[in-house]
Amino acid sequence: MSVRGLAPPDPASPCPEPPPPSQAPRSLPRGPPPGPRRGRAGAPPICFAPARDHAGGARHAWRRAQRARAPPPHYRHPYETSPPPFLQFSPKTGFQPPKVATIVYSFFFPKMASILPVTLCQMSVTREKAANLKKAVTMITDAAKRGSKLAVLPECFNCPYGTKYFEEYSESLAAGNETFDAMSQCAKENGMWIIAGSVPEKSADGKLFNSSMTFGPDGVLRHVHRKVHLFRINTDTVRFDEGEVLSAGNDVTAISLDDKTKFGVAICFDIRYPFLAWKYAEQGTSFIVYPGAFNMVTGPAHWQLAARARAVDNQQYVFLCSPARDTSAEYVAWGHSMVVDPFGNVLSELDEKEGFLDCKVDFSVIQDTRNQIPILKGVRHDLYTLSWKK
Amino acid sequence: MSVRGLAPPDPASPCPEPPPPSQAPRSLPRGPPPGPRRGRAGAPPICFAPARDHAGGARHAWRRAQRARAPPPHYRHPYETSPPPFLQFSPKTGFQPPKVATIVYSFFFPKMASILPVTLCQMSVTREKAANLKKAVTMITDAAKRGSKLAVLPECFNCPYGTKYFEEYSESLAAGNETFDAMSQCAKENGMWIIAGSVPEKSADGKLFNSSMTFGPDGVLRHVHRKVHLFRINTDTVRFDEGEVLSAGNDVTAISLDDKTKFGVAICFDIRYPFLAWKYAEQGTSFIVYPGAFNMVTGPAHWQLAARARAVDNQQYVFLCSPARDTSAEYVAWGHSMVVDPFGNVLSELDEKEGFLDCKVDFSVIQDTRNQIPILKGVRHDLYTLSWKK
Repeated sequence: MSVRGLAPPDPASPCPEPPPPSQAPRSLPRGPPPGPRRGRAGAPPICFAPARDHAGGARHAWRRAQRARAPPPHYRHPYETSPPPFLQFSPKTGFQPPKVATIVYSFFFPKMASILPVTLCQMSVTREKAANLKKAVTMITDAAKRGSKLAVLPECFNCPYGTKYFEEYSESLAAGNETFDAMSQCAKENGMWIIAGSVPEKSADGKLFNSSMTFGPDGVLRHVHRKVHLFRINTDTVRFDEGEVLSAGNDVTAISLDDKTKFGVAICFDIRYPFLAWKYAEQGTSFIVYPGAFNMVTGPAHWQLAARARAVDNQQYVFLCSPARDTSAEYVAWGHSMVVDPFGNVLSELDEKEGFLDCKVDFSVIQDTRNQIPILKGVRHDLYTLSWKK
Repeated sequence: MSVRGLAPPDPASPCPEPPPPSQAPRSLPRGPPPGPRRGRAGAPPICFAPARDHAGGARHAWRRAQRARAPPPHYRHPYETSPPPFLQFSPKTGFQPPKVATIVYSFFFPKMASILPVTLCQMSVTREKAANLKKAVTMITDAAKRGSKLAVLPECFNCPYGTKYFEEYSESLAAGNETFDAMSQCAKENGMWIIAGSVPEKSADGKLFNSSMTFGPDGVLRHVHRKVHLFRINTDTVRFDEGEVLSAGNDVTAISLDDKTKFGVAICFDIRYPFLAWKYAEQGTSFIVYPGAFNMVTGPAHWQLAARARAVDNQQYVFLCSPARDTSAEYVAWGHSMVVDPFGNVLSELDEKEGFLDCKVDFSVIQDTRNQIPILKGVRHDLYTLSWKK
């Protein structure tokens, strides 16, 4: 399902209706017009299966109109670090040009980098665990070669998605197990963060969980998120109940990427619960990663809606990473991995095929968005609180 | 802003990608494909300014494809009441045809009606309070003549939207005041519910609130919702801070429409807070009404997104009612009043001009949706709770 009929940022409309110049959104959104697109968050995403620009020519017309009265979109000129204003090039003042400024600034303020290059790996998942792991390692290694610092894998990336497979493919999440070792080694060798989608986890007491491991660039397991909200659906065409074999997790703890950046991991159906995203936002996260596998009923209806809703509610980035669609599988995944910015723009989106999505995420956009529409400042902490029982 | 790029339900895509027949969403969504449309929830909405179908021909192609393998969409055959199966007409069994069944059933089970005809009045608001009230009364009276049972007016329907106007236009919300009397009398004369958008309220202690009155069909004031989250925005083109002159409300209480139907009222910026909608859902509401006036920055970006998100999060209907767009006003409203169903479908949507939207809302869809995707059953009451301090 999609939202349509909203004129200026909806080039899909046959009658685009540009806002009057006096109220044109010049600074918000700072990036290009909303909707899926490529190459707006730094380098263009490179995909095996190219991400399509679904909007057609109408968006380009709107973009041209925007450019005529707006400064160049922010996303086109990202710096790896953000130099302060006095170091930025200005034709009037003749200060250092950007590249030199960037180097100087990076030297003195190495922690101030606000751009993170991430890669979503929308891999095809087969019934062979070893082949799945090999594919994941290859995609992550390639991402590292392209300069990515954080890679995300899909939900159930080492196992077909189905209750009858979970027991067979499950592992303990510790060294000495196939998936753990492959991911840990891959993270260490490539010096990058890996959010290892999810795998069926067998706990010490024999319970099964749908769990996501996060490895740091040193190959150390930093966190495990066990899916908190187990997926159930009961339609004519899709029936599924994870609760038949899985247990639910109880922990929602943010992970520290560096001194000033935190993020949260949640899995698929977790995205439907605003409270979980809110819990992360309360901990000061800058982005939430959802490995997920929506299907052919819920995918078109709610995949993008949920991502945008959680991004805008909490004014932070949201990454969704799905397996590629395999129409011969028992459970057919929707695909369409995407990155959504804090304003709800879909920065980049894949289609349903196997592929990867590279995106440079600019954390400075978060504060800008929050300053311009202070949603979070308006939360009535005096009136309501979310109590987490654990 | 809009969501695009989701193939089958996104006819705006240049490459529509129909779901494979084996997994086509036959029963969910039960209505027509998502997106704004007319006449799918009972009688076609009649508008002064016709609601446009933004999707063009692609949607029709998808609709035809859907029809070929799906039963006729649910919304095309609404009954004023829902007769039990044994009273429904069937060519095989030859029972009573629908109209007789409806009459018989309504006689024995008058409270079992599950269809509510509602009207959103997207009226133009001028600087003359008397003219605004007259317009509102006219639109509601016309709606009653068309069979509507509940009418919704926009935010600030008797007053231009601007902090400098609120004091001048404010009233006490009690008999003897211009707006109260006009709305109360209109509700009584037409025997219908009126959710009187919002007006600047002057309380007994001299404070100003942005408040929505709800009148029952007997003309009695049933409830007042004072805007809980005051609107602030600070962009290059739109700056506004309701907090400069308004106080915030603290009460979020559902209203009983009849023995089995409750609804909630919230105002504009309130829609950005999932907790408020959740509070209503906890009280068992079937729909939430948001009189609102998003502007030319937030309207295209978040108006529809917010409506769909709150509808899907809580699996209930959401009504948004905006003033018509007046580009000569200091604050330019986005328009686009709409009704969203519990699955997130935009049942019907106006454009930016003055007009009304008639929609027959079928409450049975709520339970069907909740059965098929049991989001609410999955809430982890054991893990978190929302504590309201009042």
